[in-house]
Amino acid sequence: MSLRIPVTEIVMPLLHIYDYIAVEMEEVRELFDSELYSQEPLVADLLEHIGKFRGKMVRPMLVLLCGKACGEISRDHHVVAVVIEMVHMASLVHDDVLDEADQRRRGQTINSLQGNEAAVMLGDLLFCHAFHLCSSLPSQQSSRLIAATTSSVCEGELMQLFYRGYYDITEKKYLDIIARKTADLFATSCYLGAQVGGAEESICQSLEEYGRNVGIAFQIMDDVTDIVGDEKVIGKTLGGDFAKEKITLPSIHYLSHCDPEEKKQMLELLFCRNDQRNEQYLQLLRQAGSIQYARDRAGQFITEAKKQLPENIDGKLRQALIELASFVIA
Amino acid sequence: MSLRIPVTEIVMPLLHIYDYIAVEMEEVRELFDSELYSQEPLVADLLEHIGKFRGKMVRPMLVLLCGKACGEISRDHHVVAVVIEMVHMASLVHDDVLDEADQRRRGQTINSLQGNEAAVMLGDLLFCHAFHLCSSLPSQQSSRLIAATTSSVCEGELMQLFYRGYYDITEKKYLDIIARKTADLFATSCYLGAQVGGAEESICQSLEEYGRNVGIAFQIMDDVTDIVGDEKVIGKTLGGDFAKEKITLPSIHYLSHCDPEEKKQMLELLFCRNDQRNEQYLQLLRQAGSIQYARDRAGQFITEAKKQLPENIDGKLRQALIELASFVIA
Repeated sequence: MSLRIPVTEIVMPLLHIYDYIAVEMEEVRELFDSELYSQEPLVADLLEHIGKFRGKMVRPMLVLLCGKACGEISRDHHVVAVVIEMVHMASLVHDDVLDEADQRRRGQTINSLQGNEAAVMLGDLLFCHAFHLCSSLPSQQSSRLIAATTSSVCEGELMQLFYRGYYDITEKKYLDIIARKTADLFATSCYLGAQVGGAEESICQSLEEYGRNVGIAFQIMDDVTDIVGDEKVIGKTLGGDFAKEKITLPSIHYLSHCDPEEKKQMLELLFCRNDQRNEQYLQLLRQAGSIQYARDRAGQFITEAKKQLPENIDGKLRQALIELASFVIA
Repeated sequence: MSLRIPVTEIVMPLLHIYDYIAVEMEEVRELFDSELYSQEPLVADLLEHIGKFRGKMVRPMLVLLCGKACGEISRDHHVVAVVIEMVHMASLVHDDVLDEADQRRRGQTINSLQGNEAAVMLGDLLFCHAFHLCSSLPSQQSSRLIAATTSSVCEGELMQLFYRGYYDITEKKYLDIIARKTADLFATSCYLGAQVGGAEESICQSLEEYGRNVGIAFQIMDDVTDIVGDEKVIGKTLGGDFAKEKITLPSIHYLSHCDPEEKKQMLELLFCRNDQRNEQYLQLLRQAGSIQYARDRAGQFITEAKKQLPENIDGKLRQALIELASFVIA
């Protein structure tokens, strides 16, 4: 692998947190690159392109921060971190097939380069690589938990698909879906970080709940950004949820609080196609306080996440986990 | 799961071989059905539909036949058999996204029912279920081999994609691709059947080579059937390889043996679109002996497969493996 984007560049906004685990993150990155390898040159080319998908690596950071908060970081932590990031990357590659997104983190998506077929196969290859690496660990426990979590992620994605265009979706169902498709992998990252380091089960579980709450907040904010964000800054296609009739928290709030006339207006906007509808949509949501409501809900999950942090872990790392949580809603 | 297609119905042409492992195959089927479960009703519905994809279950049969040829069948054999069939089924579901096939074994394909997005997610769910089940085995060795094999299957599919429309593809490259995309999983089924039963490494390896040769022959015959077969009997869309410019052994033979004028005629046929081209194509291949050549090559791999069978395994089961190999080219 040759892309070699310095991790420091990727995680710039998280840099002060990154400092706590800088050496370990480099080791994770090296393992990741060395695993993304194929003897078949044509496949190797595609895998190299995959490097561009690498994001902030929040999940590996959670593994390492929770691991270090409970003890020493070992090679097994690196493996777990790489496996989780690879599974996440596989789901991003497949998400591009799903979402027909044509931009993802300022790189061309695999499907726009090679068609859906290559994107599907490449995602599969990443899944298999991940499970192959995972089965090199001394115990089956991590493999089993990661496979169960990934199944949950897939179920979350399927549920989201079924509920597309379903405007009566409740906040409870929305939260259930994002808990599966996003928060479960955050939770497992934290649980395994602690567990591989030999922490007591109660500490592992508290950190797992921390991760779950951070993950829910993360997804709410991601959905808000899809509505209000700046495409150039985020580097991925915005308004995608709206175009695909994916109803997220701001619209759920709006539709459950508006009067019949406003509801009619919103539904017309959601069903009809016109160039200005993104702006009109945003304006309605802002006026009704629905964007702010979603941000506040994310804030509540972050507050809950911080509450879950055990007292008897390393103080500095505990502080880093608090800062990471705050960053999600910043 | 409620589909409950009797295995006896599915494996009718293999019935005399099936008799050797009838009880064990029923146990595999029950485990398979119980694993294809989701608490989410919407997902459970899709998984139920998946049951229709179940084919002849050749791979589980190989696991059990090789296992029984070397000793007693255990619960671990059932798990390996289900995992391998599930991985195979996942690749079939994704293959439908790839191939845009609208018929698969007389059931509607998942993508024609629910769109590509659901098919991608459902295939992922099957992969994750498979790896989850696999990590319940006492040792990591099976997980690691199955994950490595599945990676190879994905690489084979990607290579096939790259070589599509590449009319100078050699027989060697074609064989390399089908070895990965099909034969590796046959080989692993046989290897693990023996290995989980505690057979010596040399016996495991011989059975692995038996499986690899059977798998190559199986794919050659599958490709021939795509050209000459009867759509109603096979129950899946035929001529798909031709339409997708996938060059298989008969065309490779034809193009490497014809004179320039014939080559021109064949390439025009491959590039142009007309309703009669399937028939003209078949006629050219038949006249040149290219269909027969492919059948003969498959026969050679079956001969080699039989040669690989160790002498010091159960005689009856050895005979069953010989018959299974013969069935592939029947």
